[in-house]
Amino acid sequence: MTLLTISHRAEKTPPSPIRKLAGLAQQAADRGTHVYRLNIGQPDLRSPKEFLEGVSSFAKEVVAYEGSQGSRDLLSTWVSCINRDYDIELTNEQMLITMGASEALIFAFMVVCDPGDEILMFDPTYANYIGFSAISGVRLVSLPCSLEDKFALPTREDIERYISPYTRAVLLCNPNNPTGAVCSDDELRMLVDLCRERDLFLIVDETYREFVYDGVKPRCIYEIAPKDPRIIVVDSLSKRFSLCGARIGCMLTWHPEVMRAAFHIAQARLSAPTIEQDAAAHMLQTIGDQYLRDALAEYQTRRDAAVSALSRIPGVTTHAPQGGFYLLAKLPVKDAEDFASFMLTDFSSGGKTTFVAPAAGFYMLREAGRSTIRIAFVLNRDDTDVAIAVLGEGLRAYQSRRV
Amino acid sequence: MTLLTISHRAEKTPPSPIRKLAGLAQQAADRGTHVYRLNIGQPDLRSPKEFLEGVSSFAKEVVAYEGSQGSRDLLSTWVSCINRDYDIELTNEQMLITMGASEALIFAFMVVCDPGDEILMFDPTYANYIGFSAISGVRLVSLPCSLEDKFALPTREDIERYISPYTRAVLLCNPNNPTGAVCSDDELRMLVDLCRERDLFLIVDETYREFVYDGVKPRCIYEIAPKDPRIIVVDSLSKRFSLCGARIGCMLTWHPEVMRAAFHIAQARLSAPTIEQDAAAHMLQTIGDQYLRDALAEYQTRRDAAVSALSRIPGVTTHAPQGGFYLLAKLPVKDAEDFASFMLTDFSSGGKTTFVAPAAGFYMLREAGRSTIRIAFVLNRDDTDVAIAVLGEGLRAYQSRRV
Repeated sequence: MTLLTISHRAEKTPPSPIRKLAGLAQQAADRGTHVYRLNIGQPDLRSPKEFLEGVSSFAKEVVAYEGSQGSRDLLSTWVSCINRDYDIELTNEQMLITMGASEALIFAFMVVCDPGDEILMFDPTYANYIGFSAISGVRLVSLPCSLEDKFALPTREDIERYISPYTRAVLLCNPNNPTGAVCSDDELRMLVDLCRERDLFLIVDETYREFVYDGVKPRCIYEIAPKDPRIIVVDSLSKRFSLCGARIGCMLTWHPEVMRAAFHIAQARLSAPTIEQDAAAHMLQTIGDQYLRDALAEYQTRRDAAVSALSRIPGVTTHAPQGGFYLLAKLPVKDAEDFASFMLTDFSSGGKTTFVAPAAGFYMLREAGRSTIRIAFVLNRDDTDVAIAVLGEGLRAYQSRRV
Repeated sequence: MTLLTISHRAEKTPPSPIRKLAGLAQQAADRGTHVYRLNIGQPDLRSPKEFLEGVSSFAKEVVAYEGSQGSRDLLSTWVSCINRDYDIELTNEQMLITMGASEALIFAFMVVCDPGDEILMFDPTYANYIGFSAISGVRLVSLPCSLEDKFALPTREDIERYISPYTRAVLLCNPNNPTGAVCSDDELRMLVDLCRERDLFLIVDETYREFVYDGVKPRCIYEIAPKDPRIIVVDSLSKRFSLCGARIGCMLTWHPEVMRAAFHIAQARLSAPTIEQDAAAHMLQTIGDQYLRDALAEYQTRRDAAVSALSRIPGVTTHAPQGGFYLLAKLPVKDAEDFASFMLTDFSSGGKTTFVAPAAGFYMLREAGRSTIRIAFVLNRDDTDVAIAVLGEGLRAYQSRRV
């Protein structure tokens, strides 16, 4: 019996470049090697005790469906928190609770685009956008940004050259994953103006909104364009509160039809998880601002450690990102994926190795990222130092192996 | 400024017929009316203490991402449980943990079909399938079943008449939501043979698998067709353990490419919620079979109460479902949605009213369900009795209002 074929779109859905080598890392760990995981944005910071308290005090007898828009409690609380931090006059009507930012992005793609429609975005980009585009049949059109320019946005004129009759939206991740670039207010205004004049949606993924360093002020796009119905903001508690596994995100929009349609899609999947919504509401009601301040200081220290350690490795080019918790580094190798695999299969130093994500998967235009890796600075300073020193040793071993 | 239009597919995604009138019910409750909710499959049975123990003993310091396939612990445990109950030799490789059965169904639709492809299914059907089809661009082709025939499947010849060059799969919900029909082994064999001979996938939603009454034996389709790679099974803990809000489901398949593609989609959304997976594994490891036996006995009692109470209302036609926890009832009204709204907006008896789901939304061929409601027998026997008596009173009031 020959197997039935699967759909074209399923064939086209790429594996996650972040998780692609996870099996090799598991095998290395199973062999007893200590693997420093710089490959994934999974912080090692403790989740807030206020969240864990919320979990352990869950007192309902039935773990029932929540409303499809999200629990009333979480909606009101999250809205208040955002209004406290940003002057944007949000109400519950503009918020839909989703299963992580991932689901909010899928909803946004589906509501904005029919299959074959295009979304402009900036390369390199969060790899899973490419997965969401495959699922939703959206064509991502990629505008290259470069390490040499610190991943600044292209000019308005350059962006306009990519607008076609199929273009429906511009997608921005700010602060950016994987580049760590943070848009200036002028850049944000340029994108808002462009979208207004060219009749496009602007989807802004603000998962890393508060992670900006060196005294830069966090920015919500709605401060630049109050209540603009062309804008869809995607947000998440995953990174801000080290709660990746809680799968709590949201979508914000002042466009009533976008919200209604996203809500209908949300109804089809019934609701986001109840216990995490309860615990998240409890956390947001009771947590002070110290948690985030500490996290931010910690990430800035880690970034500095990572950049400084990388600068000590001959032949590596990198940059100090202004935000997020990733950076890209260009290595003196032809194929960074081959090198990343080598680190997991053929190398260890003192029983240790380092797991990095090959960056090609973050590029629509793959070749541009062929020699590049993404590093998530999610380990503490000391571990970061060791992990990157091990990376440097691995690089030497890899290069001498090749001679 | 005129608003940007949304996508066609978003416009076509219907609101959930189950949740459509939820706002009216909330208003009735806000006015102080006690609303008996027979509209939604949200059981009032307590979730197992073993699950709640698992939640309150969650001891990790970081709520981290789980693997995209699901937590190893939950995978192994759930696989063992299924193998204990059914002779199908499942291994972890055939299972992908999803956010409820909903996500498993969306994955199945996407992996099996490209936009425009067709899936055959039986009308009436679980309303959210229609939502999933809108999202995924799949055309559901509907074969009518009727209350008069107790919603038996059409004959093989009748089904074959609906197969076109675009047909990719047959979709079955067994036991059925909303009809409560349970397929005989002969019917299952007929579908398996048909799919083999006509080169189709067979997607079987077994969310209600254990809910069969009157001594009928629960059936997993893989017992009929061992390891058949044409089959995709969708399963969930939501109903079996009164855990709707936990959002833990799974997809099973022996088709390696289907699994790999579904896994790639799963990677794009990272992981299912961590705490619920932990708690579910703990529950499945420690719970005996008494919980399900009690639940089953309770549902059978409720079904009997519901059928008997409905039979006392003049002009109502119904049937005693063999499984699931829903039944359909045909009312002596033209438009059951108008009547269901009336119950929430204009009627109460002794401060009470009853919330039922208009059944038209469960039909692709809407007109067939225009006079029909779906009742979920999710309330205890006494409440079911009162709720249906109130429904009868409401029906009289509605009819006299119309005279």
